[in-house]
Amino acid sequence: MSDNQLANKSQAWSALFSEPMSELVKRYTASVGFDKRLWRADITGSLAHAEMLAAQGILSREDLEAIQRGLGEIAAEIEAGQFDWKLDLEDVHLNIEARLTERVGIAGKRLHTGRSRNDQVATDVRLWLRGEIDEITGLLAQLQRVLVDQAERHAEVILPGFTHLQVAQPVSFGHHLLAYVEMFARDAERMLDTRKRVNRLPLGAAALAGTSYPLDRERVARTLGMEGVCQNSLDAVSDRDFAIEFSAAASLVMLHVSRLSEELILWMSQNFGFIALPDAFCTGSSIMPQKKNPDVPELARGKTGRVVGHLVGLVTLMKGQPLAYNKDNQEDKEPLFDTVDTLKDTLRIFADMLAGLSVRPEAMRAAALKGHATATDLADYLVKKGLPFRDAHEVVAHAVKAATQQGVDLAALSLDQLKAFDARVEADVFDVLSLEGSLNARNVLGGTAPAQVRAQVARHRERLA
Amino acid sequence: MSDNQLANKSQAWSALFSEPMSELVKRYTASVGFDKRLWRADITGSLAHAEMLAAQGILSREDLEAIQRGLGEIAAEIEAGQFDWKLDLEDVHLNIEARLTERVGIAGKRLHTGRSRNDQVATDVRLWLRGEIDEITGLLAQLQRVLVDQAERHAEVILPGFTHLQVAQPVSFGHHLLAYVEMFARDAERMLDTRKRVNRLPLGAAALAGTSYPLDRERVARTLGMEGVCQNSLDAVSDRDFAIEFSAAASLVMLHVSRLSEELILWMSQNFGFIALPDAFCTGSSIMPQKKNPDVPELARGKTGRVVGHLVGLVTLMKGQPLAYNKDNQEDKEPLFDTVDTLKDTLRIFADMLAGLSVRPEAMRAAALKGHATATDLADYLVKKGLPFRDAHEVVAHAVKAATQQGVDLAALSLDQLKAFDARVEADVFDVLSLEGSLNARNVLGGTAPAQVRAQVARHRERLA
Amino acid sequence: MSDNQLANKSQAWSALFSEPMSELVKRYTASVGFDKRLWRADITGSLAHAEMLAAQGILSREDLEAIQRGLGEIAAEIEAGQFDWKLDLEDVHLNIEARLTERVGIAGKRLHTGRSRNDQVATDVRLWLRGEIDEITGLLAQLQRVLVDQAERHAEVILPGFTHLQVAQPVSFGHHLLAYVEMFARDAERMLDTRKRVNRLPLGAAALAGTSYPLDRERVARTLGMEGVCQNSLDAVSDRDFAIEFSAAASLVMLHVSRLSEELILWMSQNFGFIALPDAFCTGSSIMPQKKNPDVPELARGKTGRVVGHLVGLVTLMKGQPLAYNKDNQEDKEPLFDTVDTLKDTLRIFADMLAGLSVRPEAMRAAALKGHATATDLADYLVKKGLPFRDAHEVVAHAVKAATQQGVDLAALSLDQLKAFDARVEADVFDVLSLEGSLNARNVLGGTAPAQVRAQVARHRERLA
Amino acid sequence: MSDNQLANKSQAWSALFSEPMSELVKRYTASVGFDKRLWRADITGSLAHAEMLAAQGILSREDLEAIQRGLGEIAAEIEAGQFDWKLDLEDVHLNIEARLTERVGIAGKRLHTGRSRNDQVATDVRLWLRGEIDEITGLLAQLQRVLVDQAERHAEVILPGFTHLQVAQPVSFGHHLLAYVEMFARDAERMLDTRKRVNRLPLGAAALAGTSYPLDRERVARTLGMEGVCQNSLDAVSDRDFAIEFSAAASLVMLHVSRLSEELILWMSQNFGFIALPDAFCTGSSIMPQKKNPDVPELARGKTGRVVGHLVGLVTLMKGQPLAYNKDNQEDKEPLFDTVDTLKDTLRIFADMLAGLSVRPEAMRAAALKGHATATDLADYLVKKGLPFRDAHEVVAHAVKAATQQGVDLAALSLDQLKAFDARVEADVFDVLSLEGSLNARNVLGGTAPAQVRAQVARHRERLA
Repeated sequence: MSDNQLANKSQAWSALFSEPMSELVKRYTASVGFDKRLWRADITGSLAHAEMLAAQGILSREDLEAIQRGLGEIAAEIEAGQFDWKLDLEDVHLNIEARLTERVGIAGKRLHTGRSRNDQVATDVRLWLRGEIDEITGLLAQLQRVLVDQAERHAEVILPGFTHLQVAQPVSFGHHLLAYVEMFARDAERMLDTRKRVNRLPLGAAALAGTSYPLDRERVARTLGMEGVCQNSLDAVSDRDFAIEFSAAASLVMLHVSRLSEELILWMSQNFGFIALPDAFCTGSSIMPQKKNPDVPELARGKTGRVVGHLVGLVTLMKGQPLAYNKDNQEDKEPLFDTVDTLKDTLRIFADMLAGLSVRPEAMRAAALKGHATATDLADYLVKKGLPFRDAHEVVAHAVKAATQQGVDLAALSLDQLKAFDARVEADVFDVLSLEGSLNARNVLGGTAPAQVRAQVARHRERLA
Repeated sequence: MSDNQLANKSQAWSALFSEPMSELVKRYTASVGFDKRLWRADITGSLAHAEMLAAQGILSREDLEAIQRGLGEIAAEIEAGQFDWKLDLEDVHLNIEARLTERVGIAGKRLHTGRSRNDQVATDVRLWLRGEIDEITGLLAQLQRVLVDQAERHAEVILPGFTHLQVAQPVSFGHHLLAYVEMFARDAERMLDTRKRVNRLPLGAAALAGTSYPLDRERVARTLGMEGVCQNSLDAVSDRDFAIEFSAAASLVMLHVSRLSEELILWMSQNFGFIALPDAFCTGSSIMPQKKNPDVPELARGKTGRVVGHLVGLVTLMKGQPLAYNKDNQEDKEPLFDTVDTLKDTLRIFADMLAGLSVRPEAMRAAALKGHATATDLADYLVKKGLPFRDAHEVVAHAVKAATQQGVDLAALSLDQLKAFDARVEADVFDVLSLEGSLNARNVLGGTAPAQVRAQVARHRERLA
Repeated sequence: MSDNQLANKSQAWSALFSEPMSELVKRYTASVGFDKRLWRADITGSLAHAEMLAAQGILSREDLEAIQRGLGEIAAEIEAGQFDWKLDLEDVHLNIEARLTERVGIAGKRLHTGRSRNDQVATDVRLWLRGEIDEITGLLAQLQRVLVDQAERHAEVILPGFTHLQVAQPVSFGHHLLAYVEMFARDAERMLDTRKRVNRLPLGAAALAGTSYPLDRERVARTLGMEGVCQNSLDAVSDRDFAIEFSAAASLVMLHVSRLSEELILWMSQNFGFIALPDAFCTGSSIMPQKKNPDVPELARGKTGRVVGHLVGLVTLMKGQPLAYNKDNQEDKEPLFDTVDTLKDTLRIFADMLAGLSVRPEAMRAAALKGHATATDLADYLVKKGLPFRDAHEVVAHAVKAATQQGVDLAALSLDQLKAFDARVEADVFDVLSLEGSLNARNVLGGTAPAQVRAQVARHRERLA
Repeated sequence: MSDNQLANKSQAWSALFSEPMSELVKRYTASVGFDKRLWRADITGSLAHAEMLAAQGILSREDLEAIQRGLGEIAAEIEAGQFDWKLDLEDVHLNIEARLTERVGIAGKRLHTGRSRNDQVATDVRLWLRGEIDEITGLLAQLQRVLVDQAERHAEVILPGFTHLQVAQPVSFGHHLLAYVEMFARDAERMLDTRKRVNRLPLGAAALAGTSYPLDRERVARTLGMEGVCQNSLDAVSDRDFAIEFSAAASLVMLHVSRLSEELILWMSQNFGFIALPDAFCTGSSIMPQKKNPDVPELARGKTGRVVGHLVGLVTLMKGQPLAYNKDNQEDKEPLFDTVDTLKDTLRIFADMLAGLSVRPEAMRAAALKGHATATDLADYLVKKGLPFRDAHEVVAHAVKAATQQGVDLAALSLDQLKAFDARVEADVFDVLSLEGSLNARNVLGGTAPAQVRAQVARHRERLA
């Protein structure tokens, strides 16, 4: 039997097969086109496996050294772009193993002892995803830092807070940005929770049932920095929960991005005019010479669909699959890869873009004076003077109606006019009717008063340090 | 102003509105039809809020006592089915508050001080969901216990392990069931991780910006057993991450149920005949008199779609929403409620059904003898005699081909026949070619050997105790 | 055997079953709670089936008459709310059949000849859905009529057309509304295409294989007004394409509603102030006395998620199901029913709401003057004077930059200032720089010129007549 | 201004922009990496546009000829793989236009007169998708033909028909395959319905409002073979219904593929053993030497998730977008492209694979004799002897119970044994208890009798001719 038995994939199982695979089938079933991105994880996993095989006396020292040398050389080839990926060899695993055997001979053939591609690929994906989660967590922290900086800078800038996109109450622009810090902080928490379940070792499950070799799986787990070993071989090779859980967490990140994008687009629209995005993040129009469009947030909002679509794709993939490994599972990779890429690019570009955000406080203030934003403050004022809240609410509604009829903001009514609605109103009412008065009054934990904003900034700084 | 100002919802904001709400709009926008299920959480939250208001001196002792008495009476009314839910009052919150004011007068109107329906509903849903998560975690544990019991009982029962639904290697039926224990254990872990993020207090965020009353939000959180306070008011009222994260975790539970269902259906099909489900969980046919159908697993498999659909519904709901609260969010409840109901019913019925599972070891064994299930063992045998794995694989493929041509299982070939493929084969080969030999050989951590199965059973017992 | 053999469902297959169904299983597997809404279709289908059985000589005249009388009485009972639906009888079919046998004796038992619940339920759902599609098509037409009326009324009202939510070019508000007429017209087309595939007859497929009775299926199809007969019995009982296709069409309707809602919400926001929705379609706030919130469009935008979720639920349901009927399919009904209800309510409420829309032309005009909306017109002007378009685009970009620096709209630059950018500019430039000039210039088929709007109004009127 | 003004994309709107686009932003927002696949549609659309501009006197004859020559040369360059696609030029449109201007000078700059990239890209995608739909419809027909051929070949082969995966009634294997022909025929119908709505012309909508040039849009539509003109410019540039409708139709195709795949996998499993797939469509295992896995159907079943995911991605993308064009829409392409590729590959490979299907009639027959498959026939037999169906059902249930207790199939009971259950049973009962008797009896339109199968084969042949 020749050493290059693996020169093409069908030779790996040739004896039973009476006809070669058609080219279309090769292309349809091959994964090397996308799974080669797992090469580093594949080699790392193989090294840990080989080292353990040797420690357990299953592999000789010489074979181990040959494998280590060979895999090192292959890593160098791949990094240098000189590795010849072959479709005939189907996937990243067979490509690397075939090349290893080419380089180091029979020792290469011994590497696969006690493992199968089923547990190998699960290990590779987990190792790779763990690294990506760490990178994403870092990017989430970076984005939070940018938002915290902007929040501190704009703690005293007032914009109209909306509910139902109707002017509700004045809020600090810094406070508004910190809402997104909370979201991205939760995203980072979820990524860490997911990481625990990603970071478990399937290797040793072999094809589905475990192996007859006396493997030390916990040693491999320690070598690879994994938190534990998958405790059931059938589950180990057929589980893709970790990919789905990650995709769900990624979808939440993108939902937050979509909400922030929606607001950036609104705020940059001429009718708001609250902000400007840096030119480097906008594009113009091939037909309308005056255009400066917020392409990046729009595209990011659109990419939410992409990531959500991948989540649904993965869920659909796993629905109703019997144990253990089925070829369907090969379809887990492309959505996962694209989700990771989209997330990383989006987080990176948002951190850059938001660092350059220009804010127009005067436009925000003007807008905050449009919708009787301090009406609740007037109601609260009356409550403090003894009216039950529900009654105060009704009194103020009448005052708002009158102001609207006069075409002015509630805050612009005179003391006499206000007194007419309730005799308890006195001159100090204007302290609560001003935007600043309203803002500073909300000095409760989590509230919008600049003092609270600064306290939160300090808390986040410490957390993110 | 009359005490029954809240007799219908539009009166809660009447002064500004010049025409009453149409009946269709009332029906379209009202939520009391479904959100009344939150009543207990609503009352619990109100009691904690009122108690804190009193402790902070915002509410008098008398008012607090009136509110406590009134809410107690309302709880009794609801439990007794005597509460008159009014569509005109839109939601559970206004229904209860209006009734409270009816019962205790002006004190009832003071309860809403320093809060809004926006933070109130978020608090209610979180309190309610926390309780449901605890129940679901309990049901997941119960289901695991049933599976662990069955696994122990059938540790030595051999069935063919499949990959690609082709006979792969013999596995212990107990081992197979434990794969699902791993899945449901992960589900329980995820539920606990989700619980942390559910169990945070929005109350005190008021409409969106916090409040001017000196609330002690951390006191309320402690009273309600919550792990923390939502640190940003805008986020507090607009966040629905917890609902989505829960739905994603629920979808994973249902995916596992769908896989188990698929297998139960297969195993009960005449061509497998591996198991029988209790009659109480099957139905017959109105036309085919011989039928006994596995309706429960089929329906459960179908209900996966329902729960996944709700997840997608919630994600779509939140995509692109600007801050802070928008009415869209009211649509979070029905999918969440239905997800919880589906999950609880399904877990309960599966625990009952699986406790009554009948197993047919002889059918499993017969099937395991059909697909050369011990071919890998023969290859491993040759490796131990010095052949590289890849070469042993090829040798065995030739032997399998010969056995297939003779219409027998690999294990039925004679020693001479086997020797013809590789001279290293000796009489001890039949130890590895038997189903028991193969099974016992896989005595690695997580492997299918009965010894491993029993070790896992012990571990799970301890964990679930 | 007693006549009330069907008094509970398990008696329909009792002989083989050794234990009764548990209450939880009954509840889990029963569908009568929701499928009773199919009662009229069930009776209609049964009447057509019975009539054909009699015509084919399979059923006697007397039996037919008894069945007709019995079903008529049952219909009256149900309409009067006097029918006693029994959970024990599982579904609408067995409930009605059992009652029929109670009423007319042995003839009732003969009704089920040559059919099964598998083909019966498929027929019922199709008949019911056909009726709902007709109603939805009517509601889509009604909504289009309202939009066409408003479009005609506001053909000359100018608002800024946006791309990327940045001011792009002036458009007629009527033209803008007609964009939605196009969408809803496509929706109606799709509903009709779907209807063709809904309106085919499964009855006669029996359980899965057809029947040995000499049925005349085409006669039944004619009686029921169906366009054809399902040509393969296995497909007939297992196909749910029609439900998925309808849900996809419904999702598109809701996507259009979500886009319109987004715009209504934006336009009603104080920073736009383009429109006001009737008070009857808005709600206030329990805490902020000044609020008037666009609840209906927000809720409708949210309900998009609901309908999309149901589509995904149905797709997930059908994925990977082997032929023929499986119990999973019972899960098709609730999502379908809720989709239909949501769609009908939403279309109805939108037609009502939009009929009462108030438009603020002056706010629209003011906004149209903010973003150099006629810059493209200036470029086109220069092209007509001989400049290549790409060069004209660049010239105008410089002019816009200058206007922005002076804080004015492009249209407010003087002739001399404009000439400085290109000598070809003359006094007639101001004709193209005005909003009206720009609007009227776009007098191409499908363009925004009021003349085009009126032509489209006429076309739609004719189409919808 | 230099002729190579378009040498990079930011120069297309340079005057207003004070800083160049960052490399990350370029990569994030550029589409040329994937939209270059639209090149042929882009050139076809440009030629039709230019020809019309000339006919309307907007473009000179010389310019038209220059454009025609230039675009012809560019097409040749692209086909030859010699076109230099530039990321800096963002998309396929600017790449081609810049190259055109390089080649033919000022005429190239005039091509963009009266259009915008917004209507251009919508036109390109529609033209391209129309061609792909035609190809897909052809592939659906080819797959149907293969299935019809196999159906004819196996019209008399009997396998157990399942409901709930329990043996239900004998069916013809040909009949079973024809169920899939029905599904794929419906898919083709839906593709044609979708095509009507794809095949409409957006060109002439320009950026969003139409154009001031006297375009003849209907002429362009005729030139391009389109069925009509988009009648509203705002809708024309912002509509992506056609992509969603196509994706929904594609998801249904894949659902059908997933069901067929599920069955192929089941049937090839050793416990069924009904079929064998050609070796060229299977793969082996790197560890288990005996494996021959049905990779193609498994992978196809998995790819269902991919296509469904894209559908959800597109729906999420469009949810809540205000008019008119937003950059989000750029995200429509990759899911659409991947959906088309997946569909075409899958249909092609299934047609090839199914043409080589091996069928094992004896295994099917053996399985059909396992589950009392003719019990319904016995009930029907009794009905014909005068028993009401419900009573006959009960009698047969008792007979099945007895047969099961004796461990034989119902058909193996003796006449005396059968008579004991109902005296009406006579010797002719064995005609209906045989598989062939049962099969031939179902000779109703759409039923499983071989005569019906052959009639359907003839109908399909005619339809597909």
